[in-house]
Amino acid sequence: MTVFPAGQQFQTEGECLPSYQVRLACRAGQADTTAGVAPGFVQGNLAILPEKYAAAFHRFCQLNPKPCPIIGMSDVGNPQIPALGLDLDIRTDLPRYRVWRDGELIEEPTDVMAHWRDDLVAFVVGCSFSFEEALLADDIPIRHIERKVRVPMYRTNIACTPAGPFAGPMVVSMRPLKPADAIRAVQITSRFPSVHGAPVHIGLPQSIGIADIANPDYGDPVPIAPDELPVFWACGVTPQAVIAAAKVPFAITHAPGLMLVTDLKNKHLAVL
Amino acid sequence: MTVFPAGQQFQTEGECLPSYQVRLACRAGQADTTAGVAPGFVQGNLAILPEKYAAAFHRFCQLNPKPCPIIGMSDVGNPQIPALGLDLDIRTDLPRYRVWRDGELIEEPTDVMAHWRDDLVAFVVGCSFSFEEALLADDIPIRHIERKVRVPMYRTNIACTPAGPFAGPMVVSMRPLKPADAIRAVQITSRFPSVHGAPVHIGLPQSIGIADIANPDYGDPVPIAPDELPVFWACGVTPQAVIAAAKVPFAITHAPGLMLVTDLKNKHLAVL
Repeated sequence: MTVFPAGQQFQTEGECLPSYQVRLACRAGQADTTAGVAPGFVQGNLAILPEKYAAAFHRFCQLNPKPCPIIGMSDVGNPQIPALGLDLDIRTDLPRYRVWRDGELIEEPTDVMAHWRDDLVAFVVGCSFSFEEALLADDIPIRHIERKVRVPMYRTNIACTPAGPFAGPMVVSMRPLKPADAIRAVQITSRFPSVHGAPVHIGLPQSIGIADIANPDYGDPVPIAPDELPVFWACGVTPQAVIAAAKVPFAITHAPGLMLVTDLKNKHLAVL
Repeated sequence: MTVFPAGQQFQTEGECLPSYQVRLACRAGQADTTAGVAPGFVQGNLAILPEKYAAAFHRFCQLNPKPCPIIGMSDVGNPQIPALGLDLDIRTDLPRYRVWRDGELIEEPTDVMAHWRDDLVAFVVGCSFSFEEALLADDIPIRHIERKVRVPMYRTNIACTPAGPFAGPMVVSMRPLKPADAIRAVQITSRFPSVHGAPVHIGLPQSIGIADIANPDYGDPVPIAPDELPVFWACGVTPQAVIAAAKVPFAITHAPGLMLVTDLKNKHLAVL
């Protein structure tokens, strides 16, 4: 788990960061996708749980760091996460939320002020947008970005290590790459363990329980050329799927593709 | 290119290194394979050329560092390479040599004292034994070692960058690995650029001009299980094939599998 030290490492005066501008726009009601927004800044998946379930979920993330790399979390009942952004309010600063009761999606509001409680704990989990930026910067083409669709994602037969009520299969995202690019992509994404790190699988989807690569369980299908291999990364949809399956009495997540934009820089996540 | 600083970094007194013992045995006439000999110590491919061709060959290695990573070289006419080993004499310290005239193999002696000339330059090129040790240490099984056969090697359609008379296709070695092990193997071997580094290809042999994976051009075939991918590394046989194809008037190489054992440690080659 990567929890960044709390503190005021962001300027409170002077220039307003693009990431902060996005959060302020969300706070004012903007509800668009965050794909391509505030380039260079880390975006994160959100999971908010009552304290009663937070410890088990935290342990689940600890045990499954590839799909659930924690990049920040709140104190109990505190909607701020200063380590992730100036003036950040987790209740208002995402474009859209999903509110869950007993595993059922009951609402998709643009803020969760009405749902906030003193016993809630917010977890922010790393997102593939960060490593995709590093791949593109290395001239590795990414099919779903070229085609302006969502990345294809699949439930696998790779079981996450369970913790309390949280259990289920790892969800993976897939990017078709030429073999030499796949090797380079392993090197590049290995530098970013806090945003899923190296791939979990290459080349043989049936080996990880994916029967039909043309029919992803989430996102959109993309074609794979004869000279390409499908390359699979652990995906931040995993914790959301696990929370829904656990049917906890109450939970809040982000709406897919509408993430928290933080003041962290993607490049600063590189461990090497 | 990695040329280690010359000097007496090896103890001249006290314990005799296992690598030095191997060289002394070779000097006394031993002519066995060096596979598995002096574990932990770097072994190298040998190429000896007249000064007239040495500069072009050196440039060839510089331009093709993945198949031809130089780990040491001699001064003109000097049979010692102090940076690679105590008391090392390149004319006697390998188990067996190949002597070439105009691209023809004319002799396979156990020393080349009779062939030595004042205009010769010796190049020592990194060898996959070093990274195989790192893979095994990480519990990644290597098929040809389990089966006690030679690694399968293939000529590819990947052209080396030519230099002077030296040109030709890259030769690669192949190890079948489960996809998760293949990803791990990319990480591990990326740490060792001076012994071929990361793989050059994964999974689609026909893409690099290998028509029949069951019929290697050098070494022995090994089976690939349905849940494995063939993983290909640039191979130190490349410079030997290129020297033969160049039909230079005179050259000396090691006999396949009977390498120079140096006093360098494999683990010290890791760049990270």
